[in-house]
Amino acid sequence: MKATTSLATSTKDDVFIRGKSLCEELIGQVTFTEMTYFAVTGTVPSLAQTAIVDACLVTLMEHGLTPSALATRLTYGSAPEAMQGAIAAGLAGVGSVFVGTVEGCAALLARVVHGEAPEAIALEHKTSQRPIPGFGHPLHKPDDPRPARIFEVAEAHGIAGPHVGALRALSIAIDRAYGKHITINATGAIAAALADAGVPLEIMRGFAILARCAGLVAHVREEQTKPAMRAIWAAAEAAVPYDPKA
Amino acid sequence: MKATTSLATSTKDDVFIRGKSLCEELIGQVTFTEMTYFAVTGTVPSLAQTAIVDACLVTLMEHGLTPSALATRLTYGSAPEAMQGAIAAGLAGVGSVFVGTVEGCAALLARVVHGEAPEAIALEHKTSQRPIPGFGHPLHKPDDPRPARIFEVAEAHGIAGPHVGALRALSIAIDRAYGKHITINATGAIAAALADAGVPLEIMRGFAILARCAGLVAHVREEQTKPAMRAIWAAAEAAVPYDPKA
Amino acid sequence: MKATTSLATSTKDDVFIRGKSLCEELIGQVTFTEMTYFAVTGTVPSLAQTAIVDACLVTLMEHGLTPSALATRLTYGSAPEAMQGAIAAGLAGVGSVFVGTVEGCAALLARVVHGEAPEAIALEHKTSQRPIPGFGHPLHKPDDPRPARIFEVAEAHGIAGPHVGALRALSIAIDRAYGKHITINATGAIAAALADAGVPLEIMRGFAILARCAGLVAHVREEQTKPAMRAIWAAAEAAVPYDPKA
Amino acid sequence: MKATTSLATSTKDDVFIRGKSLCEELIGQVTFTEMTYFAVTGTVPSLAQTAIVDACLVTLMEHGLTPSALATRLTYGSAPEAMQGAIAAGLAGVGSVFVGTVEGCAALLARVVHGEAPEAIALEHKTSQRPIPGFGHPLHKPDDPRPARIFEVAEAHGIAGPHVGALRALSIAIDRAYGKHITINATGAIAAALADAGVPLEIMRGFAILARCAGLVAHVREEQTKPAMRAIWAAAEAAVPYDPKA
Repeated sequence: MKATTSLATSTKDDVFIRGKSLCEELIGQVTFTEMTYFAVTGTVPSLAQTAIVDACLVTLMEHGLTPSALATRLTYGSAPEAMQGAIAAGLAGVGSVFVGTVEGCAALLARVVHGEAPEAIALEHKTSQRPIPGFGHPLHKPDDPRPARIFEVAEAHGIAGPHVGALRALSIAIDRAYGKHITINATGAIAAALADAGVPLEIMRGFAILARCAGLVAHVREEQTKPAMRAIWAAAEAAVPYDPKA
Repeated sequence: MKATTSLATSTKDDVFIRGKSLCEELIGQVTFTEMTYFAVTGTVPSLAQTAIVDACLVTLMEHGLTPSALATRLTYGSAPEAMQGAIAAGLAGVGSVFVGTVEGCAALLARVVHGEAPEAIALEHKTSQRPIPGFGHPLHKPDDPRPARIFEVAEAHGIAGPHVGALRALSIAIDRAYGKHITINATGAIAAALADAGVPLEIMRGFAILARCAGLVAHVREEQTKPAMRAIWAAAEAAVPYDPKA
Repeated sequence: MKATTSLATSTKDDVFIRGKSLCEELIGQVTFTEMTYFAVTGTVPSLAQTAIVDACLVTLMEHGLTPSALATRLTYGSAPEAMQGAIAAGLAGVGSVFVGTVEGCAALLARVVHGEAPEAIALEHKTSQRPIPGFGHPLHKPDDPRPARIFEVAEAHGIAGPHVGALRALSIAIDRAYGKHITINATGAIAAALADAGVPLEIMRGFAILARCAGLVAHVREEQTKPAMRAIWAAAEAAVPYDPKA
Repeated sequence: MKATTSLATSTKDDVFIRGKSLCEELIGQVTFTEMTYFAVTGTVPSLAQTAIVDACLVTLMEHGLTPSALATRLTYGSAPEAMQGAIAAGLAGVGSVFVGTVEGCAALLARVVHGEAPEAIALEHKTSQRPIPGFGHPLHKPDDPRPARIFEVAEAHGIAGPHVGALRALSIAIDRAYGKHITINATGAIAAALADAGVPLEIMRGFAILARCAGLVAHVREEQTKPAMRAIWAAAEAAVPYDPKA
């Protein structure tokens, strides 16, 4: 089968994106969030879907001096002529440790939606002593404050569907299985909300990458106006001294 | 002076971004575009500023199989376990050749806004035979259709200000100096619109990177559902044969 | 335990790397390959180890217009002011599909060295119909010509040890289990040779990345002197036409 | 003119690189350094050229916890499944601030070799108060110890030619013009030595990228065996506190 792309083509008079006229149907008609959802999935999102995707992107965007943000700032200070390289360096860290849990949680929710008992999933993780993606937070205790807000947005738009339901059922099962309360965390809520908003599991990481990209632009801007790179470098060197024997 | 960050911090109960509560003031209250503008500039944008930034991001997002999109697809096909690396590879190409013209045009507009005569700038480029950033397009002739739409959005929101004015004045001066019509192109219109929307010149490239990031996520998704990477690779190999003497 | 680094420190008079004086003991005393082995493993390699690592790096360096090389060229043509970004884009594709097989094969060889029967491993792959990392090649049939050369180098230096032996035993077992000859390929030979040269499995990919980095520098140089990026782009666009319905 | 590549092609029986048989003429016959020089320039280097390139690569490889190395470690700790992304993140910082001086110095040396007076170049920099690429070092005073070693290697192999001569003449002119001794630094010596070894100015950064790539592999290995990423992260966060007013 011949490879084709549905994404875009240009004519003398216009640009077409997935069959829509950029000039007539998109610029000025859709927000960046709607355009992203449309380009990625092929469907123009409803207001409710847009609201939930906006809420998830807003939640994911910025977390201060994360490893990603540090990589961007260190790179920008080393090669300010190539802002794109600094952003790329930061995005290279949006991987298994910090964002993989969105996908991991979404996979568990899909199992519940397809009929598996939440109790079985809870027990399986407890027995194998594996962390449960989407649950637990080192700082936000007893509860991560973000899931409640994301669920409110989803409910206000009538979009809290089977995956949010599955996450809640899983939460109850987990608390019972572990005999203590383990909070649903932001990545868990985002996995459920994006799934109910129609974002396929396989591309959820892409939304996290996009949100982080915006945050990294803010870090570049702060580095332009209030540089911290030399302070970061000096602190890191002091924290990890040379010891040839170690 | 001690380095600090205004961007974000976390407490037990909330996350704060530039002094605002993520849970109380941002999630569900602002769109992704508004949040980006706020994180980057420190100011919550007006509806008009948001509309113009949305229009620019929508315009920049997707242009089909650009070198950036090809780099992302080739990388994703080589390392599908690391979607972030594929996006990063594509973003590394958002540099001087394709996006530098936004900054170049914005710099010219700033000169006009600060009182320089557009005629002098037009003449300077004509004499030195340098291309004028923000003007001309190989395919869209006589006129790139996107600037008109971006200006409409800006005007509908009453935000077409000094930089859009400067661009129009520069356009008239250029047509006179060259004795023929040279279209304002999309990057020119975006430079003017973003400047009038309050985006500093130094970080405009960051908005282009963000828009392209969303487009690259769409290319990853298409690669997941309708892979073209092997076809791209084969076509490239055939187009550039081995010749040890060359 | 406090984090430390053994890698490097500077004094007024010298730089020290893993306890050795850069000026007195390294510059002019060791080759780049020896220095790499020393920095990575902490041990100065023997002549035999150096020869085998050189042979593997030479084998891995350059394969023409691979997806990695294409990503580098497309990125360099888009942002020639940032050669480092172009190389980084190419390296982002040195992942599971093309280089993961070195690690996969090394893991199988470790199992044989630790006493598992090669026949069991061969059968396990045949039964599950999984490809066997380090075996088979689409073009080089009946035999990939590179392994024989790598083994010759290893044997000439008396360094063909347990992992090369394991690979040969596995090869015999595979041919028997599948009832036909499946060639040992270059990545298989490299996995065995690097393991016998003392390179830990976990960092083998790093040697592949280093070798490819050198190849990508050559592609940048060719792009500087004989640019092919526009031809690659045009061929890719022609090979993957727009079809909004697809 | 049709685009072609001289770099590599594969046949059923061999791989050819710039017209040479990989199996018959390269594996086991050339070192990694020789292979790199050959792939990049098209010429097999002499022993003298190889020695000088080895000395430069050894000098450039490793400098401890530089911004590049920190970016690699932070990224590796965030996405350990994609070592290539961590190396790519580190390489994205091999830009104008730390490596651009090699090219800058080489450009000055080319001017001297082409007949310009070193005194004029020294005066030009003094008058404009611009730093002179290849001269000065914040720690190594009065003299950076590395240039002497690199020159020794070049002289031992009879390869210290016009560019090393130009650097020495420039050094004398600078000391006179500034009325004090300013050391030739490592990047200055490397610029001169690589130029005399036949490496074109335009691709010198590629050799720096390659050398740093090897160093970054060593940092990944140290992160695998003795992780410092969490300590780096914590130190950076502590050094750059949140201040929403700033």
